[in-house]
Amino acid sequence: MELLKVDSVEQALDKLAACMAGWPLEAGRVPLEAAQGLPLAQDVHTEEDIPGFARSTVDGYAVLAKDTAAATDSIPVFLKVAGKVEMGRLAGMTLTAGQCAAVPTGGMLPAGADAVVMVEYTEPFGASGMALSQSVAPGENVVQRGEDAAKGALLLPRGRRIGPAETGALAAAGVVRVPVYKPLRLAVLSTGDELVPPGQVPGPGQVRDINTHALVALARKNGFEVAHTAVLRDDEALLEAELRRAAHTCDIVAVSGGSSQGEKDATRAVIDRVASPGVFTHGLALKPGKPTILGVDDASRTLFAGLPGHPVSAMMVFELLFCRLWRRLTGTPEAPAIPAALAANVAASPGKLTSWPVRLEAGDTGYRARPIYGKSGLITTLAGADGYFTIPRNAEGLPAGSLVWVQLF
Amino acid sequence: MELLKVDSVEQALDKLAACMAGWPLEAGRVPLEAAQGLPLAQDVHTEEDIPGFARSTVDGYAVLAKDTAAATDSIPVFLKVAGKVEMGRLAGMTLTAGQCAAVPTGGMLPAGADAVVMVEYTEPFGASGMALSQSVAPGENVVQRGEDAAKGALLLPRGRRIGPAETGALAAAGVVRVPVYKPLRLAVLSTGDELVPPGQVPGPGQVRDINTHALVALARKNGFEVAHTAVLRDDEALLEAELRRAAHTCDIVAVSGGSSQGEKDATRAVIDRVASPGVFTHGLALKPGKPTILGVDDASRTLFAGLPGHPVSAMMVFELLFCRLWRRLTGTPEAPAIPAALAANVAASPGKLTSWPVRLEAGDTGYRARPIYGKSGLITTLAGADGYFTIPRNAEGLPAGSLVWVQLF
Repeated sequence: MELLKVDSVEQALDKLAACMAGWPLEAGRVPLEAAQGLPLAQDVHTEEDIPGFARSTVDGYAVLAKDTAAATDSIPVFLKVAGKVEMGRLAGMTLTAGQCAAVPTGGMLPAGADAVVMVEYTEPFGASGMALSQSVAPGENVVQRGEDAAKGALLLPRGRRIGPAETGALAAAGVVRVPVYKPLRLAVLSTGDELVPPGQVPGPGQVRDINTHALVALARKNGFEVAHTAVLRDDEALLEAELRRAAHTCDIVAVSGGSSQGEKDATRAVIDRVASPGVFTHGLALKPGKPTILGVDDASRTLFAGLPGHPVSAMMVFELLFCRLWRRLTGTPEAPAIPAALAANVAASPGKLTSWPVRLEAGDTGYRARPIYGKSGLITTLAGADGYFTIPRNAEGLPAGSLVWVQLF
Repeated sequence: MELLKVDSVEQALDKLAACMAGWPLEAGRVPLEAAQGLPLAQDVHTEEDIPGFARSTVDGYAVLAKDTAAATDSIPVFLKVAGKVEMGRLAGMTLTAGQCAAVPTGGMLPAGADAVVMVEYTEPFGASGMALSQSVAPGENVVQRGEDAAKGALLLPRGRRIGPAETGALAAAGVVRVPVYKPLRLAVLSTGDELVPPGQVPGPGQVRDINTHALVALARKNGFEVAHTAVLRDDEALLEAELRRAAHTCDIVAVSGGSSQGEKDATRAVIDRVASPGVFTHGLALKPGKPTILGVDDASRTLFAGLPGHPVSAMMVFELLFCRLWRRLTGTPEAPAIPAALAANVAASPGKLTSWPVRLEAGDTGYRARPIYGKSGLITTLAGADGYFTIPRNAEGLPAGSLVWVQLF
């Protein structure tokens, strides 16, 4: 892996995006419930005025505002009650000067009425009269037709991930078949003669397969569909067969493992046999994450990735490349990062983007970010990391107290 | 709803927690994949040393460190190659002085060896010799047995929500049946004669049912199981029957709707008929969210909530009471809040906790929080809110530029 061939993370991301430039993302309409977490594939506009009629925002009496001009606490005005508006029904009457009508919160304003006096300022008077002790301006206690959202207004932009609030907005606008990007289909393959399933006690020289499980969880959380997983012996023929099979059904095939040079070389050779034009990134200027290989097969429209064997590195590379690729392609904004004060000095690697897993510690005035990466800190890192921050390629290390922006996992 | 009976949010939360104090949360072991997003029901400790054997962290040659003491770039030391360690296998040899053994990254150190020289500093010499041009200290390029996590160490604390990193840690420790709290079962009932399903164009006086969909999405995102939903006419007998049914299968029954005083009174009356001791909170000192009713039925161990009819208010109350209740009961920390500079002046309500939905705007040095709540801003609020911040009960309003902490939805 010659240094000259190493890409920066941004270069690698640009190359991945360029590979997919000619591959239209799959989009389709899905029910509101199935759209949770997916990004909108297009701008969504309202198709009608919301609300579709003038509504009262209070319990009270709909009036012609000018009839109430003289009303005060001590000298009310007297209006004739013309009727009662029922919830969910056409008001079904037209108010003229001197008339009012009972209307509940959310009820439709009768024609002629242009304001509502709250029930607290009214008192029945005689058989069909009402004394009103407050004057109201036109429009008072009323939401006008289309005031919330006018027909044709932009409701939600392309790329917005559907969460609870977006769900409410779409329901309000009657968008029950939501245009979303379908998740990319991902295969996660882990290789290594030393791997045993997590449920098994490792024998001498063996370790549990961590990467499959951590990467699957990370990918799903970020909106990928995990279509295939496999744990393989170190066997080029086996890996080749598995890559060919996965390329048929998946958009991205990620191979993690291969911590030794021989295994990395084998993964690269196999991707080059299976994919054309094949491997285009031979290592990343990223710490940790250098031993990353990226390739593409144009015919089957499949991206291939050889991820580092170290679980934290593999997760970081998947996050920095593929989760960001997905957000870039779909126009989804990055999630807000948390500013925090570094709790310890950290080193940077000259010429490389350095990523540091951290644990956030809440204080009264803000957060402290405690770096938790170390030589042997696999479990500690995995168990303790809330997120990570990065130090740019050509920056020095950072002293304790520096402001860093923590991206949550 | 007398002012004297109104609870602060904290009082209401304490009362809800007190109601559930005698109800053990349901916990159980689920497969790693099914544990995503759920909180751990107990501390998880490692059951063995990790790694279970001393491993090399590089490709190279395992050695007795003292044999390399004299090695330099110009004058290497010469050792006899005693064998080759295979990945995933017992090293199967014991090194003695003057010997070394090839070992891949992650491979097991042979007995007798205490360090590894990287392959870059080695060169074959003769038939079975190796020239090593670097001296290593004992433990160099080695992860010792139990160095990552010693047997019995705390791996993850009770209350931690299982995400990708936790998944990796649990897989590493062999915890494939994860002890988690089972989600609380929730019923979401929406009432109102004016409601039509979102897929339907509202007739005169009608509006679409927003609350069911927004609350279901919010609840699921926060780890609740939505066991039952229904949209009901304004009919006390209907509501009563539905509440009785839901109380059998659910832990929490949330009734949203009832924007008029008559409907609110009806909801309260029905909860008091169905539940014993019944309603204990008659309104919240919260804006928006005042018309909130809370009750409990001890026999069926069910909490009842009458939520405001306004979707944003209903979501806010559910978040501030029930999502926080769940995190408090399970020991789950609140998610980190985002500090932001207010983009506009906001008002507070004397004597009430005021919550303001905001949109986050990213800048070079931090975030600005743009308040988006207003009289008619239902759709705008739902479509635009990234989260919210709160102003304490007795605080004044806040001027633009103030620091606020935004909790994401």
